[in-house]
Formats: sequence, C-alpha cells, structure tokens
Amino acid sequence: MSISNIQPVLIDGTWTESDSVSTFTPVNPLTKEPTNELYPVSSIKDVETAIESAAEASDNLLDLGPTSIADFLECYADRIEARRSDLVDMAHIETSYPKETRLDGIELPRTVNQLRQAANAARNRSWISPTIDTQTNIRSMYAALEGGVVVFGPNNFPFAFGSISGGDFAAAIAAGNPIIAKANSSHPGTTRLFAEEALEAVKDSGLPNSMVQLIYRTRHDVGERLVSHPLVGATGYTGSRGAGLVLKNAADRAGKPIYLELSSVNPVVILPGALRERGAEIAEEFVSSCLLGTGQFCTNPGLVILRKDAATDLFIQDISQKFREAPVGTLLGESVEKGMADGVQALQDAGAELLVGGKSGGGNGFCYQNTLLQVTGAQFLSQAGDLQKEIFGNESLLVLVDDLDQARRILRLLEGNLTGTVYSASDGADDTAYSQVVPILRRRVGRLINNKMPTGVAVSPAMNHGGPFPATGHPSFTSVGIPAAITRFAQLQCFDNVSSGHLPTELQDGNPLGIWRFIDGQWIS
Amino acid sequence: MSISNIQPVLIDGTWTESDSVSTFTPVNPLTKEPTNELYPVSSIKDVETAIESAAEASDNLLDLGPTSIADFLECYADRIEARRSDLVDMAHIETSYPKETRLDGIELPRTVNQLRQAANAARNRSWISPTIDTQTNIRSMYAALEGGVVVFGPNNFPFAFGSISGGDFAAAIAAGNPIIAKANSSHPGTTRLFAEEALEAVKDSGLPNSMVQLIYRTRHDVGERLVSHPLVGATGYTGSRGAGLVLKNAADRAGKPIYLELSSVNPVVILPGALRERGAEIAEEFVSSCLLGTGQFCTNPGLVILRKDAATDLFIQDISQKFREAPVGTLLGESVEKGMADGVQALQDAGAELLVGGKSGGGNGFCYQNTLLQVTGAQFLSQAGDLQKEIFGNESLLVLVDDLDQARRILRLLEGNLTGTVYSASDGADDTAYSQVVPILRRRVGRLINNKMPTGVAVSPAMNHGGPFPATGHPSFTSVGIPAAITRFAQLQCFDNVSSGHLPTELQDGNPLGIWRFIDGQWIS
Repeated sequence: MSISNIQPVLIDGTWTESDSVSTFTPVNPLTKEPTNELYPVSSIKDVETAIESAAEASDNLLDLGPTSIADFLECYADRIEARRSDLVDMAHIETSYPKETRLDGIELPRTVNQLRQAANAARNRSWISPTIDTQTNIRSMYAALEGGVVVFGPNNFPFAFGSISGGDFAAAIAAGNPIIAKANSSHPGTTRLFAEEALEAVKDSGLPNSMVQLIYRTRHDVGERLVSHPLVGATGYTGSRGAGLVLKNAADRAGKPIYLELSSVNPVVILPGALRERGAEIAEEFVSSCLLGTGQFCTNPGLVILRKDAATDLFIQDISQKFREAPVGTLLGESVEKGMADGVQALQDAGAELLVGGKSGGGNGFCYQNTLLQVTGAQFLSQAGDLQKEIFGNESLLVLVDDLDQARRILRLLEGNLTGTVYSASDGADDTAYSQVVPILRRRVGRLINNKMPTGVAVSPAMNHGGPFPATGHPSFTSVGIPAAITRFAQLQCFDNVSSGHLPTELQDGNPLGIWRFIDGQWIS
Repeated sequence: MSISNIQPVLIDGTWTESDSVSTFTPVNPLTKEPTNELYPVSSIKDVETAIESAAEASDNLLDLGPTSIADFLECYADRIEARRSDLVDMAHIETSYPKETRLDGIELPRTVNQLRQAANAARNRSWISPTIDTQTNIRSMYAALEGGVVVFGPNNFPFAFGSISGGDFAAAIAAGNPIIAKANSSHPGTTRLFAEEALEAVKDSGLPNSMVQLIYRTRHDVGERLVSHPLVGATGYTGSRGAGLVLKNAADRAGKPIYLELSSVNPVVILPGALRERGAEIAEEFVSSCLLGTGQFCTNPGLVILRKDAATDLFIQDISQKFREAPVGTLLGESVEKGMADGVQALQDAGAELLVGGKSGGGNGFCYQNTLLQVTGAQFLSQAGDLQKEIFGNESLLVLVDDLDQARRILRLLEGNLTGTVYSASDGADDTAYSQVVPILRRRVGRLINNKMPTGVAVSPAMNHGGPFPATGHPSFTSVGIPAAITRFAQLQCFDNVSSGHLPTELQDGNPLGIWRFIDGQWIS
C-alpha cells in the first residue's frame, strides 16, 4: 500500500491542512504493519487556532439552548449507527479488537447509549442542581464553562472513551462546552471517522462550527500549553500516569480544572469462606475478567489478596492452568507489549515469583503470555510501592497473606484505586472478615464491589468511575455515570437579587421547564 | 506587661508544649503594641504528630454516626455563646474590630448559625447526594475523606471564617473529618479560645480526642508538607494569593484536594440609567460597602465601571466627598497598611489617577486614608493585568469607559472573581446594556448580583462564595452555603452489588433515615 497525503485536522469547522511539525502512521497490532495513513503532529499554531475557535463557539453557545445540544447528541448517535461498519472496520485494523464480540456488539451500542443519555440529561437538566432560596432571593445552578474543553482519550476504548465519541466528550458537550479532541495515537483513523460524523451532526443541529475540533498528536510542550491556555475551560484525560501527571502539573499551575483517570490495580480480596464455598466459580470469573480484552481494561483485577491455605493452593492451580490454556490475545501496540515486559520484570525484581507466562509472544501480533505472579503478604508489606504498579495487560499479581490482620495492613498501604472488590461467602461465614476489610478498602477506592469482578462499568447515575489519587485527580468526581459526570465540566453560577425575567429559564419563578429543583431545602419538580 | 510563657498547641486532645522553632507575638492594631502572649512557630514534628493523630481519629470516626458530629457542632455553638464576652474581648484586641457592631452583633451570631446549619446538614444528610439505581443495584453517596482536613483561616473574619470556628471548619466537620486548624497569625488568641471550647465540646459529644487540633504558625516548607502529606485528606485555605499558590502547588503535586479563596476585585458595573435614576442612593451604597470593615472584605467592591458622562462626574464628586469625610478605619495590621501603600503606588505606576486619599494615616493605629483612584477605559485595556490586582482595604478604582463596547472588552480581560455586580435602572432603560454585559460577566464570577453591593454573604443553600481561578482554585465549589460547601470535604463512594445489610444506612432499602435520595432519576424522600 502506498502512503497517501497527510490527513487534515478539523479546526473551526473545516478539514484543514495541519501546520505539522512531523507525522506518524498507526500500526496494525495484528500484522505489526503500518496502515496506509499518515497523520500530522500539530504545531502550537494548530492548537492556538483551535483554542480560539472553541472560545468563540463557547460565547456563541450562550444564545443557543440545550435543545440544540441534545439534538446534536442524538443526531450524532444516529450517524454513528449508520456508519457502524466503517467504524468497526477501521477500529479493528487499529486495535485488533474483535469486530462482533467487542466493537460492534458491545462498544458501539454503549457509545450511542451514552450519547443519548447525555442528550436526555441536557434536555432534563438533571446535572445542573438548580437551588433556590426564596427568602434571600439567591439562586444557583451549574452552567457551561467559558472556553472549550480538551479531551484526551485512552488507547483501550476507541469508541466508548474515544476523545470525540466517548464518556468525557458526551459529558462536556451535554454541559454546553465545545470540544477540542486530541486523538489517541493508536487509533487516529477511528477518531477521524467519528469526527467526520460529528461535524455533519454539528451542521445538522445548528451548533457553532467549532463545536467539535480534532487534532491528532502534539509535542509534550504543546500539550502542556493546550491544557493551561487562558481560553481553555477544562480538560478530561484518560491514559498513562506519566503523561497524565505532566498535563496535570501544567493545568494545575494555570488554575485550570483537569479531570484525570491515571492508573489502578483494582484490588480483589477473596475471603476464605467464599473460596471454600465456590472456589471453582470464582476462578472462572477471575480468569475471564483478567483476560478480557487482553487485560486492557482500566478496572482489570491486577492484585488479588488471598489467605495462604489449602483452598488457595487449589485455586492457584486452577487459575494457573486456565491462564496457560487460554488463548493469548493481541495487545494494542508495541508499547503495551513492552510495558508488560518491563512491568513483569519489575515485579520479579521486587521479589514476585512467576507462576505462569512472563514472556513476550504466545499469540498473534503484539502479545505477551497470560501471566500470573505471586508474593507473600510479608513481601508485599516490605515493597508495597513497587508491587502495586499497574501493568496494563493480561497479567495479575496474587498476594498470599498469613491472616486477616496482614491483609488489613496491606490494604492500608494501597494507593487510590478505581475499584476494590471483596468476595464473601453467602452463608455469612465471612461477615466478620468483611466488616474488618471494607472500612479500609472503601476509602481507597471509587467503587466497592461485592461478589463480582470489577470489569464492566455500567453507565448509570449511581456509577462512580473515579477514586482517590492516583486512580484519578480528585476523589469526588466520576467520569462515568450521567448526570454526575457532566457536572465536572461546569461552573457554579449564582444569581443574587436578580429579577425573575433576567434569570436563566432553569431558575425562573414557576419552574417553566418542570425540572427538579432544590427549593428551601426540599427537592421539588 | 510582661511576656508569659509560650502558649501550648492542641495536639491529640491535649494542650501540649510545642516543638517550636521560634515564637511570635500578635500586635494590637489600634495601639500598635504587642499583646502579652507568646505563640510558637511549630516544627515539622508538631505537624507530623497532629497529622497522625487526625488520621487515627478519621479511622475511629467510621464507628460513630453523624449524630455525634451534629451533637458536637451544637454543643460547640452553645459553648461559643456562653463564652462570647471573652471571645469578643480577645478578638477586639487582636483585630480592632468594633465589639458591638461587628464582633458580638454580626460575626458571632453568624458563626454559631453556621455551626448549627452544619449540624442540621450532618443530621439530615442533605450534602451526601444518595443515588440509587435499582436495576443495576449500584448505589453511591458522598462520605468523609480519609485523614484529617487542614484549615487555614484568613485574617479578616476571626470568628466566621476562623480556622477552628468558621465556614471551612463547620463544613469539613459536618462531612465527618477531623480538623487540623492553622491559626491566622493576626488573631492566635481568639483562635486559642475557640479551640478551648471546641475541645470541651469534643469531650462532651464523645468524638475522638483528635477531632480538633490547633497549631499557630509554621515555616513555609512545613506548611507545604502539611497540605501534601499522604495522611491528609484535603485542605481549605482562605488568604493571600501568594501564600495560597505555594500551598496549592504542594497539594496539587501530591494529588491532594485543596480549596482556596485567593483574591477578588469584585467588579461593579453601574449602567447609565441606574445612575440617572438614583445616583445619590448608589453613591451611598457604594461608599458604605467599600469602607465597611475598613474595606477588609473578600467581596469588597474594588473596581467600578462607569460610562464617562456628566452623571458620572457628579457621582464621582459625591463619592469623593464621602470618602474624604468618612472616618478612616483601623486596618488588621502593619502588613495590610503596607499592602495598601504598595498597591496604590502600583496602580498609579500603571497610570491610575489618585482622586482621594493615597497616604498612610488619617485614623487610629494601622491605617490608610480612604482612597479612590480612576483610569480611563483605554488605559485599563492597555494595562489590564496591573490594574486588576486586589488591594485589601478601604480603596477602590473607578474605570471610566467611552461606551458599552469598551466596557465589554474590559470585562473580557477580567480574571475570575468572587462576585460581579450590575446596577440597572428600574424602568428598563438599561435592559439592552444589561443583556450585553451579563453574559460576559457571569462566567467570570461566582455570584452575579443585581442592584446591590457585593459585601454581605448569606449562609444559605444557593449561595456561591466561589468563582473561577484565581478567585478560588476551582470554579465548581463554594466555601459558603450549606449543604454545597460540605461536599468539598468528601469523596464519592459507590457500592456495586452490595447487599442491603452491608450498605451504609443512607443507601439501604426502605430509606430508614427518611432522607432525600435520587432513585432511578427521581428525587424521593
């Protein structure tokens, strides 16, 4: 295949030649061959133009109601469905994810469902918390930020967390913010197809042309400028901890909100009663969860705490055999394979014993053997920092503890995580242990799970896909779950002594929109 | 008066000798004489001990219900009222604030009211946003952080924003967090008296001994360690922008939430119709607001935008005369007086013309003449950065604009502020201008006010005492207003597939507490 021209970027409503400083070509993870597309690394000029266009759109949006935004989200969801086979084909080339069982069957429906939920929230204002104090005539609500929102999507969900199609995108749009999407370099083609449909949906719904913009890659210093620019409202980032912390530092110094999902080992505590009661079943669940998507899930169970006893020996034999027998999946790229190799080596250097796998290869394309390691509780306690580094891929570390007290001490040394899981017996045999473990665990994680593996993140209002640092940047925000995820991309606006006619419709007397409002301490609709 | 021994710090439930690296003595602003009390500058050792004690208390609090916390807050409010004359006397010495018209008449009632509102919110859980998705059995709510919350109080509200008595204190306690209070160095004695009462209230209500702790001052590096310590949950800071940004940087790097109130000039736009209609009345309101508390309010109107015309000339004559005739109040300390002198000089260096005042003196103790300056709109546009620096005290800068368009361009150059005010005519003459000014202004401020001066911050649910950076550290949080202010000191906790018996009472089936909950998209109580 011949290399075509450099792909244009989407700036100010037009597919435009990038002021590129260099180029890159994505690699098909299955064939390890470059695709036939060439993408630009944008200069500061591209970025500045996009930021200024977004800021202008942000101003113009003040004159448009949430209805246009909801129309856009729904129109876009329809367009995505209409173009599903192109999207699935391209994402399959760029990620190697199975077409039917993953991309078309799971991720695409989830993506359009999210966009439609966001449209619904834009219409019913469920995210704005309108609050009215009648005695003082003070009223407040959340409203869009000033300036565009920058979204950096991760490599592992090209649709559902894609920078121009996923959760952060849907949330920031629903709040009324224009988006500057920065494609993940592992799937720029997929992102481009989404952007094509998004632009058409923007035009169809009458939103400002710069409502959605797309760049593909920047140098680090340009990325730092992007998230800290005075005309940018906020940033959503999902990706590696290293790059995320660089962006966080730049945004923090400029006083710009940045919401980050950085890393998580998602500890799973399997209590003795549960193992005795249904060890084989839990083994099945664990292996399936850990190897799902070749382990490339943010909630992948990467750390399993078990009591050292005969039942655990059997469990380990069982999962070891399953890890050996399971097909080795393809990873998203060379850097993921290398990350696994380095990470597994680092665990071994810190004293972990290799049980299964531990080498590159075993499957097609970029891949690494399904890998299990183990350490004792005492070892973990002595090297807790090194032994809880996330390895992104089909790997997990077992920690064999002497007793519950040692497990509790280990939990106290855990960093913030997205999830924490406890398996407990159905007959109440683990209840005491459960009540000693959970108070420690639940404050270290965003979501406490009982008797279920952590992979699988429902898009529903009570979901918390968040957690204390360094799982995310702030312990009180979630990136999944509508309406809560939307409120991240908003500012609190208060109106003091403003007459009803000058108020936003949402806060006017008589509740013209019929929405839920918190009036003098009562929720009323 | 002879200097007594060094005052002890309150650590781990005991008044303890500080491991001090040096000492300081507060100065009476009226007499400019040191008081007879000597306070320690704490070492890292004091700080580490306090942090570890708070973390232990944070764990122990898990076994205590919000009822104990509410009992504490109410008991403490009662004790403050019982000790009001001591508190008022001490605060008068340390701040020079009038006893009856300020400390006893306004600030003390506000303080106990806040504490009682916080107690009420702890009881009725109005801050926790319990959310339940029945189909997926996912439930979430806000809950206390892990580790203590550090509170740095400002110099200007020794009671209502005091580090161990004020808004951040009440909010963080109501969420269930132990407090490490860092006294403001201008009123350590007042803070000490509060701490004495708080400790007794802790004992009376059965809370852990380390629920409230107090240190007086630290070196900068120790302060940075305090806000970034792994065992600290979050920090609330109100004070100068310089010191705040140093702490923000330290906390941000450690991934620790820090809520900051930093600075604000609180722009006031007086539209021509309003001035024509009731110029004398507005002049009265402005002078009274600007000189209230010798201008030492965070919402002091420090920047007034007016159209250059004959009515404005009259208005300026009027307020100039009032500024000259009004008594010059005492400032909180030498540094405030020096800050005014430096700030007024900097405005003049940036081209502002002095209309009234401009010199130290004119009253009793530390003081600076009531001061008015003016610039043209064109000047402001050319030096917008230098001309919007907050001057803390009895000063304001008038900006005389050519027309509405120039006013709009000025508003676009404003940094984030706590408040933004528009005065408009009651007969609708300013309606067009209003609708052109407000969309710009409202996104630059936390609270938009109409036809009322910005001083005066009601403690009510819809209040937003916040605003975009650098007014505060994040545009979606408020430090005043219950329940919203409480949620800052909380983490979002989600429970996935957890059986009802293992859930926090707030999320259990059947709503045993009878609280407001967001269930499947509807608020139900």
